[in-house]
Amino acid sequence: MKLKRPILLVNKVKCKRNIAVMANKAKEHSLIFRPHFKTHQSVEVAELFLEHGVEAIAVSSVTMAEKFASTGWNDITIAFSVNVNELEEINHLAQSNSINILVENIEAFSFIRKEINNNIGVFIKIDAGYNRTGVDYKSISLVDDIISVCAENTLLKFKGFVVHSGNTYQAKSPDEILEIHTTTVSVLNELKSRYIKKYPDIIVSLGDTPSCSIANNFSGIDEIRPGNFVYYDVMQYSFGSCRLDDIAVCVACPVVAIHAHRNKIVVYGGAVHLSKEYIEVDGDKIYGLPVKLSPNGWDIMPEGNFMKGLSQEHGIIHLQTEEIEKIMIGDFIGILPVHSCLTANLMKDKLLFVSEFSLSINSVYSKNN
Amino acid sequence: MKLKRPILLVNKVKCKRNIAVMANKAKEHSLIFRPHFKTHQSVEVAELFLEHGVEAIAVSSVTMAEKFASTGWNDITIAFSVNVNELEEINHLAQSNSINILVENIEAFSFIRKEINNNIGVFIKIDAGYNRTGVDYKSISLVDDIISVCAENTLLKFKGFVVHSGNTYQAKSPDEILEIHTTTVSVLNELKSRYIKKYPDIIVSLGDTPSCSIANNFSGIDEIRPGNFVYYDVMQYSFGSCRLDDIAVCVACPVVAIHAHRNKIVVYGGAVHLSKEYIEVDGDKIYGLPVKLSPNGWDIMPEGNFMKGLSQEHGIIHLQTEEIEKIMIGDFIGILPVHSCLTANLMKDKLLFVSEFSLSINSVYSKNN
Repeated sequence: MKLKRPILLVNKVKCKRNIAVMANKAKEHSLIFRPHFKTHQSVEVAELFLEHGVEAIAVSSVTMAEKFASTGWNDITIAFSVNVNELEEINHLAQSNSINILVENIEAFSFIRKEINNNIGVFIKIDAGYNRTGVDYKSISLVDDIISVCAENTLLKFKGFVVHSGNTYQAKSPDEILEIHTTTVSVLNELKSRYIKKYPDIIVSLGDTPSCSIANNFSGIDEIRPGNFVYYDVMQYSFGSCRLDDIAVCVACPVVAIHAHRNKIVVYGGAVHLSKEYIEVDGDKIYGLPVKLSPNGWDIMPEGNFMKGLSQEHGIIHLQTEEIEKIMIGDFIGILPVHSCLTANLMKDKLLFVSEFSLSINSVYSKNN
Repeated sequence: MKLKRPILLVNKVKCKRNIAVMANKAKEHSLIFRPHFKTHQSVEVAELFLEHGVEAIAVSSVTMAEKFASTGWNDITIAFSVNVNELEEINHLAQSNSINILVENIEAFSFIRKEINNNIGVFIKIDAGYNRTGVDYKSISLVDDIISVCAENTLLKFKGFVVHSGNTYQAKSPDEILEIHTTTVSVLNELKSRYIKKYPDIIVSLGDTPSCSIANNFSGIDEIRPGNFVYYDVMQYSFGSCRLDDIAVCVACPVVAIHAHRNKIVVYGGAVHLSKEYIEVDGDKIYGLPVKLSPNGWDIMPEGNFMKGLSQEHGIIHLQTEEIEKIMIGDFIGILPVHSCLTANLMKDKLLFVSEFSLSINSVYSKNN
């Protein structure tokens, strides 16, 4: 297959390995494995989860729930504080699917309660310290109030508590991630022990990829909802969540200019392909890491090669002399994304499994010269 | 019209005013006005340029050229160092359209020259100090070589020189923008005077919105190619390129959570809607500015209200107490984007002209309570 423009290459072998590792970890700890599909948003990638018996998923919008419901995924948690403007769509989904919503506000939920006309599961979103959204875990009276409102409509079933420890993304080290995770686990256990007598089926669920990748203490936890791990990315690598070799996607970009004297190449591949997400290393902003494409995948370049700038459609890559000498205009180079969720969202209509194609990665130009 | 999910609202009145101001400025300075359509990427917004007699446009990818060619735009500069993997598509476009390409490398161009089989205009991309891409303006021998290669294929017509002063985006003040612009103007004039005898129709063209908005010296310049000005954004406002009132787009987002005690609201509207672009003000990262939606547009909120965080689908907005008190869960709030090019790209399938609809911006929920 001949590449022409930027495309998202998905390495199925790595993808399947990442899924297997997480599925086995869930099994080992007797956790419900409810992968978050917001990262890949792909019906084809979703199918890779089937061989591990995955049936329950999480998504981050009603639109995504509709997409996956239409392709056979029937147990869906919409892991996003419910948008009251979409109750009609949620009711419709709940007609033939098992749908869970997230609630955190009593006034809004009192209204929602009246509008729901199909069976729906209700998780209370708990803020265990991230301070983004959710009920403060110490606000027991608010939790009680939400559970009471739930009881006023027999179609609503109180299911339990969810936390998304998004603050692990601000962590500076694996130890800090573990510290945040330990707090989350203890907050969820405290809530569980308070309500389990009255609700013996209660589920406590946590979600972020850094914790799920690094931690080994899931004592008392019932469910995990990681999403990013399916692809991983440079940011997760920088946290210690994965190895560089685990990153399962790259954006293949054609080289459009070479400025060897300043060790820079320009690729067709910019913010509209990768997103502007970056990590900072020694004062350099890094927007991605270049890899050498091969017919069936890619090889990692030595440290010191990185994408150093992005405009809308262009990317500037700093390459060491020994790397730049091997490249010609028109060749394709791969970029491991800093944040694969955002990259995959931008490239969701341009996804290609590398293992299924033998790629022609050298340009017409280089072949003719 | 009832809003349900994040949508890009385009204020046609502001849009038309921005276009009129730039078109008049071009007329006043006898410049060819070749607006860059990469910002809006919209067939409907493109039509707003027609009343100013605009016929020539710039785009930043072959895909965009194909899109606009198919809707009647026939004079197109693909303002992007040519991707040799797309020569087939470029040849095809040039069959029935007037296409210009950008060239900066002699080896690649020697190959391109052989492959072109329709009339195509050639601009040499000049690096006047941005150091992103282009021929160093001092490399006269390379310029001469490219022009010679051009002459070897009668279908290729050497048209002139283009500069994109993307370094204005790093400027700290309008004065710095003017300084960069002055350099660009003088570089282009120097090149023009060197080649005008042999090529009396030579065109020198510059492009960035900050320069085109602020500068008034276009002496010797033949063409401008600004793009962002059609919408402007918070970043352009921070440069002094526009007033807040000139920003012609906002993303309307439903409020999903209110945390009044910490002056924060959470909206359904995140990095996949706005992009992760930010500006830094007094140590705060600002991802957008909230505005109050009204049935026919929006009103700017006082300083001190801003979007302070973004995850994939959520945004966190800091609101002052007097603003937060007026908001209910389910209401829509507008966000002026930091970088409208990236936002419009993300929202290109979710665009709505506000002047054509009377929006219902309060949620079902707030109407029922």
